Amino acid sequence: MCPKYEAAADILGKKWTGRIIRVLLGGPKRFKEIKEQIPEMSDKMLTDRMKELESQNIINRNVYPEMPVRIEYDLTDKGRELQPVIESIQKWGEEWM
Amino acid sequence: MCPKYEAAADILGKKWTGRIIRVLLGGPKRFKEIKEQIPEMSDKMLTDRMKELESQNIINRNVYPEMPVRIEYDLTDKGRELQPVIESIQKWGEEWM
Repeated sequence: MCPKYEAAADILGKKWTGRIIRVLLGGPKRFKEIKEQIPEMSDKMLTDRMKELESQNIINRNVYPEMPVRIEYDLTDKGRELQPVIESIQKWGEEWM
Repeated sequence: MCPKYEAAADILGKKWTGRIIRVLLGGPKRFKEIKEQIPEMSDKMLTDRMKELESQNIINRNVYPEMPVRIEYDLTDKGRELQPVIESIQKWGEEWM
């Protein structure tokens, strides 16, 4: 078992990460739209997590030069491929926790 | 997505947990045998993780009243069913990290 497992498990184990990814599996969203689906999370926490996920290349931050500027977040391929992983964690959690 | 997901992801995200479970998927082991397979981990860290996993009912601690006493650790059903979860994390990690 290599350090890549630990690195992946570390990302998934962070609070809110799973939920943010799940929300984005539904398609691109603005910050406010993600927030609305996870109302218990603070703005600061969401900002921190989004920056982290962006630096890990799990989400993209797309800026559309409209007036006013529109910013949307979307999953990368790397992020989208977390779907079966998150589902397997969820399935185990529902059965055993 | 319910708190059960967060609880499950929290367990899986802790350093060494995945490796300990992987070692025990190979069958019951003594403390020393687990340690030999994860030499980078300190005794204290392994002790702490084992206690945690025991309290979460993921591993059993079996005491055999021999001379000297033999103590072995084994996965419970709850622990064994983490196998596909750990494999999916590993697969993603190997591909993307």
